[in-house]
Amino acid sequence: MLQWLVRVLGYGVLGVLVLALLGVGYAFVRIAAYHQTEDSASLDRKLESLATMSAAITDAAPRPNVVVIFFDDLGYGDLGAFGSEAVETPAIDRLAEGGLALDHFYAAASYCTPSRAGLLTGRWPVRSTLTHVVFPEGHPIDNIQRLMGLPVRLPADEITIAEALRLAGYSTGMVGKWHLGDASPSLPNDLGFEHYFGLLHSNDMFPIPVYRNGEVVEEHPPDQTTLTDRYTDEAVSFIQRNAGDPFFLYFAHTFPHIPLYTAAAQRGKSEAGLYGDVIADLDRSVASVVAALDRLGLAENTLVIVTSDNGPWYQGSPGAVRGRKNTVFEGGPRVPFIAHWPGRIAEGVRSDEIVTALDLFPTILALAGVPLPEDRIIDGVDVRSTFFDAGATPADRPVYYWSGGDLLGVRVGSWKAHRKHGVLGSNLGSVGLMAPKGPWLFDLDRDPDESYDVSMKHPTVLGGLLRTMRELDTEIAENPRGWIQ
Amino acid sequence: MLQWLVRVLGYGVLGVLVLALLGVGYAFVRIAAYHQTEDSASLDRKLESLATMSAAITDAAPRPNVVVIFFDDLGYGDLGAFGSEAVETPAIDRLAEGGLALDHFYAAASYCTPSRAGLLTGRWPVRSTLTHVVFPEGHPIDNIQRLMGLPVRLPADEITIAEALRLAGYSTGMVGKWHLGDASPSLPNDLGFEHYFGLLHSNDMFPIPVYRNGEVVEEHPPDQTTLTDRYTDEAVSFIQRNAGDPFFLYFAHTFPHIPLYTAAAQRGKSEAGLYGDVIADLDRSVASVVAALDRLGLAENTLVIVTSDNGPWYQGSPGAVRGRKNTVFEGGPRVPFIAHWPGRIAEGVRSDEIVTALDLFPTILALAGVPLPEDRIIDGVDVRSTFFDAGATPADRPVYYWSGGDLLGVRVGSWKAHRKHGVLGSNLGSVGLMAPKGPWLFDLDRDPDESYDVSMKHPTVLGGLLRTMRELDTEIAENPRGWIQ
Repeated sequence: MLQWLVRVLGYGVLGVLVLALLGVGYAFVRIAAYHQTEDSASLDRKLESLATMSAAITDAAPRPNVVVIFFDDLGYGDLGAFGSEAVETPAIDRLAEGGLALDHFYAAASYCTPSRAGLLTGRWPVRSTLTHVVFPEGHPIDNIQRLMGLPVRLPADEITIAEALRLAGYSTGMVGKWHLGDASPSLPNDLGFEHYFGLLHSNDMFPIPVYRNGEVVEEHPPDQTTLTDRYTDEAVSFIQRNAGDPFFLYFAHTFPHIPLYTAAAQRGKSEAGLYGDVIADLDRSVASVVAALDRLGLAENTLVIVTSDNGPWYQGSPGAVRGRKNTVFEGGPRVPFIAHWPGRIAEGVRSDEIVTALDLFPTILALAGVPLPEDRIIDGVDVRSTFFDAGATPADRPVYYWSGGDLLGVRVGSWKAHRKHGVLGSNLGSVGLMAPKGPWLFDLDRDPDESYDVSMKHPTVLGGLLRTMRELDTEIAENPRGWIQ
Repeated sequence: MLQWLVRVLGYGVLGVLVLALLGVGYAFVRIAAYHQTEDSASLDRKLESLATMSAAITDAAPRPNVVVIFFDDLGYGDLGAFGSEAVETPAIDRLAEGGLALDHFYAAASYCTPSRAGLLTGRWPVRSTLTHVVFPEGHPIDNIQRLMGLPVRLPADEITIAEALRLAGYSTGMVGKWHLGDASPSLPNDLGFEHYFGLLHSNDMFPIPVYRNGEVVEEHPPDQTTLTDRYTDEAVSFIQRNAGDPFFLYFAHTFPHIPLYTAAAQRGKSEAGLYGDVIADLDRSVASVVAALDRLGLAENTLVIVTSDNGPWYQGSPGAVRGRKNTVFEGGPRVPFIAHWPGRIAEGVRSDEIVTALDLFPTILALAGVPLPEDRIIDGVDVRSTFFDAGATPADRPVYYWSGGDLLGVRVGSWKAHRKHGVLGSNLGSVGLMAPKGPWLFDLDRDPDESYDVSMKHPTVLGGLLRTMRELDTEIAENPRGWIQ
């Protein structure tokens, strides 16, 4: 009987949720439908900024190649090099053994779209307005988002790593999942990538045709069993074609996001099930990219980065930390990170320095001798000294944790605060009127899985962290896009 | 704007949920209001059964004392002896060093009421009808449960460990949280405990006066800062008064269930915050009980058990396993377990044998020379050989995982299956239409944190486990109370 009751309630709540979403959505209808923030002034600003950056580039910089391999929903505990005993990742583990592995690396957000916006712009995603997940045009959720006035693509006034590197003569390519909009002027080819091949959205959305640059080369539904292999062929081909130039390759895998698909030859081989098969596919892909670099004699002039967009979803392991994808616990944004560059990055370095995905923008630009744009706040910091000289990152630099556009947590050093949020919801791992809503303070050194609130023992620390969050709230309220006059 | 939308939606959904609960609740109104299953026939059956058990008791059994210390919401990772580096539990750790610690011990459920029903009856809680959490009479949720026809107290036809031990001349006492109803004939004194002191419900419910036997000795709200100390004094006093008899003490702490309170002298001392202070209080309580047994020369004739009713809620640590209180992942029912009996249980034994809280009923009865009732299914098994001789528990014995009365998972050996459930909900750690609903199969040896579904690799294993669940479904549908003709 209780079971029946729960089912009836389930259907009722589902129906009401849908109606409420539609109803409240209509209340937000704008004449201009969805609301993109760029205008001719902000686009002009970007062009001026790029011109200023370009003018300041000297020929002195070494201009190494950069390959960023970005997995989707791969957890902090999903690689051999990060403690997994269930899945096997020999190629990725070799990169870690031959380079730098970071145990405190943070994606820009705990889910897909904002994580990617932050990675490519070096700015907390709230500044580029993409704090929510975008859907293919025409998808029911996309329709609701447009009615609500939410932006549905990365504003074209943002500057991506690819655009900046183009200024220094890099060849730029992207393979895989974009997830920053599916219309110009916000497609990969619009925002700095000369070559693009992949799916524009997550593989559980629809429609998801396969694109090569602006052209559909495979209609929905794509054959996902061969997707990782096809991505890899494209990546290797891009490297081969551009072996003579400095190049930037952003290789954003579709997996292990669900639904899981794997090459027929791999299927059933891993002791960790289909997820393990998929990870094995991804590991073989990494092996192929590394082999191509070796074969072409490029390895010693190429920085290879391997990381993920956020923590694990239903399957996958967050390792020894609390929380998963979509949470502000560590398991949301904390992901594996490996940087490999023979002769430049020392072998087998394991570091607890705190680095974020936002840091790749200033770090990669510095490697290429490209100055930062001066017209906008860049939240990342240049971490070359951590990569190359075991240097420390700034001890007082805050890492922020978000749920959509809401700033819900901050870490400085070993201290992490979660603050109060919401009516029904709690940011502390559960939902309910009785659930504690914080603020909570955790000491990640002593309590890495965020189990014991020490706010009453260290009220001054908590107060300082809450103030840090309020200051960012104020700054964003006053200057949402983070423009510098 | 999105934030505002989420808030509006939150209030809307909350209101609708309450209305839906009330509405559907009314549809279930019974003339007799809530539905208790015991009747004169089942009560007669119990009396006959107790008489049969009593007649079979011989004087040969040694009749050791038994003390069960039962924490509330203490997680698998919340004790020093179970890997915590944040909280300190020296007294409990000494018990583990001097006895047996089990790493695969399961409470009968992943939340309070059914866990306690299972512990005291040796039967999966579905058999005693208490698969939900009960509330004080008059509490709004209690009113709704009564309208829905749910039972609000343990049926008086159940046989508890205390009642069985009374047959063998044990003195029986209970201190702490009962949570199996607040009306006769289902109060602690009705169901075998000669002495009772404590709160009948969780410390976040109301009203929760303090009872001594049937009498209220402190009106709501009780002073919770002194509760652990007062419980401890009562427990020590019970031991002293009954030092000459065999006795059974069920000491069910109110903490670390929230809201957290601690003795003023302890407050602020633990580096793990208020939760750590509370655990320190509980550890000192254990030290006092052990000291009393030592002082009275009873230690070598007393089995002391320390465990918990379910995994951690908002704070507290599940250690290296997935999930928390209220989930069917391991972190829901898997809890620390220590058994200590100098001279009888070997020192410093660490075991991976699978034991459940249901096993305490047959094990303790066997120690006291009391036969099992023959009129009802007892799900637990006698694990004396595991306690005393490092013996194995039955390798093919299933451990079941529940959400309310729904059987959602089963473990046999290292294999654990989660099966499909629900409309909106998923038993796989999240809620949503897109969420995978199983069935999933995990190999807990290889994948202790339930990250990698291997159902496609081992379909026969999954099939067997699903069949095991269906068999129990059928058995319970045909014989819900588990009576044996």
